[in-house]
Amino acid sequence: MLNKNAPIGVFDSGVGGLTVVKEIMHQIPNERIVYFGDTARVPYGSKSKETITKYSRQIVRFLQMQNVKAIVVACNTASAYALDEIEKETDIPMIGVVKPGAKVAAETTQNGKIGVIGTEGTVNSRIYSQYIKELNPKVSVIGKACPLFVPLVEEGLLQDPVTDEIAKRYLSELIDIDIDTLVLGCTHYPLIRSTVGRTMGENVTLVNPAYETARELKELLEKRELLNEEPVKLGDEKYRFFVSDSSEKFKRFANSIIKYGILSAKTINIEEY
Amino acid sequence: MLNKNAPIGVFDSGVGGLTVVKEIMHQIPNERIVYFGDTARVPYGSKSKETITKYSRQIVRFLQMQNVKAIVVACNTASAYALDEIEKETDIPMIGVVKPGAKVAAETTQNGKIGVIGTEGTVNSRIYSQYIKELNPKVSVIGKACPLFVPLVEEGLLQDPVTDEIAKRYLSELIDIDIDTLVLGCTHYPLIRSTVGRTMGENVTLVNPAYETARELKELLEKRELLNEEPVKLGDEKYRFFVSDSSEKFKRFANSIIKYGILSAKTINIEEY
Repeated sequence: MLNKNAPIGVFDSGVGGLTVVKEIMHQIPNERIVYFGDTARVPYGSKSKETITKYSRQIVRFLQMQNVKAIVVACNTASAYALDEIEKETDIPMIGVVKPGAKVAAETTQNGKIGVIGTEGTVNSRIYSQYIKELNPKVSVIGKACPLFVPLVEEGLLQDPVTDEIAKRYLSELIDIDIDTLVLGCTHYPLIRSTVGRTMGENVTLVNPAYETARELKELLEKRELLNEEPVKLGDEKYRFFVSDSSEKFKRFANSIIKYGILSAKTINIEEY
Repeated sequence: MLNKNAPIGVFDSGVGGLTVVKEIMHQIPNERIVYFGDTARVPYGSKSKETITKYSRQIVRFLQMQNVKAIVVACNTASAYALDEIEKETDIPMIGVVKPGAKVAAETTQNGKIGVIGTEGTVNSRIYSQYIKELNPKVSVIGKACPLFVPLVEEGLLQDPVTDEIAKRYLSELIDIDIDTLVLGCTHYPLIRSTVGRTMGENVTLVNPAYETARELKELLEKRELLNEEPVKLGDEKYRFFVSDSSEKFKRFANSIIKYGILSAKTINIEEY
């Protein structure tokens, strides 16, 4: 039933998942993408498992109606809370951002001490810890929620003394326990990668799950013989963007992340799905 | 049809409206209150007029089913975007936080220069400016969106050098143009009243719409002969709290605002209304 020429569905609570889209565009440039950003109900990071699962289920129904051949849950909170449940409910192959990030973190650490930063939801779920320990039971994983990072990124304070100060406060306990690997466990965080890197120091390796997810997506599509081998034909809309709230603000922010010009994003009523 | 003993319905996007509830509790202590906080879809401040109106309409339907005698829109963004439309759709008297705040600001200013701080939605709607100018066409009203104030308050940084620094940046243009009155146009902002007051200096009067709204609510109930004159009977639940997402986090924050112990908040599915 699944078709090589069909698009890949990617979703997130808002704009953060575009850092994953950017990696997919780079690594498998022949693929079509349908993106959905839940801008009417953003953020997911401080909401409950039940709510996030309900929202994710509605979005998967919407993406299915776009005939996608695979779904990427490009949101750490939704990957942590909802993926296990919703992937059982469909035949479409689905991957989240957590497992690929966890795998690389487990392979990277030398001293067995891994830090994970993310939203409250992602950190409280302990999902990174669970996956990392399945791969390497000897490591210790220390999570730290950083709730102000997303609003600081969305306010554009990517290089700013305030962001430096907040980073110092959030990250000091991870520095104190001498981690050597840090997972950027929220799709917004690659945008303040340099601040986080500077704060942690050069002996700490930063893991960007967006990059790893695009790599695993490529492998998954190859294995299932779903990789699109030919360039998208003229006339096919290669990249399409949907949001649940007014698209103006989304477009502004999206165009600052992806250099490909996002000309339009269509607003849909996600509560109907 | 409306009944003196019925509760007052109060709603907000989340916890901020509790600063209005607190004022109502103080000023008209015999009243029963049903509060709804839309914690599954918070924040409203950066979302569109259409989305906020849809959400507000669902909440009004829920409050009507609780047989409220009046509704307070305890959210500046919803008051700005949705109140005009939704108050036409019901016979229940309804007041928002914007008109009472605008009225006092128009009466307070001496030099005719009023500042309004709030979310992007409230500031872009220019609603305070519109109401203030209806009362006093000679004043000038300058709005300034302060998107980081809500996350800073919710992170508990009420007295903190970071909040001081962000306040300085947001407020400097209002200081430069020499306003003498500043409206705290978001229900979270009374919680950082002292930071804002210190930054603006003692010659600027801060207007707290939460206080003014409770005062106008009392007048409205008196005029309509709906004020509850007797203490609430034993057995009647005086204050009831509902939310659209898990209530644990709400309870924690709520109990830090209202000293009355909030023992329980019931989670409902607001999308069904």
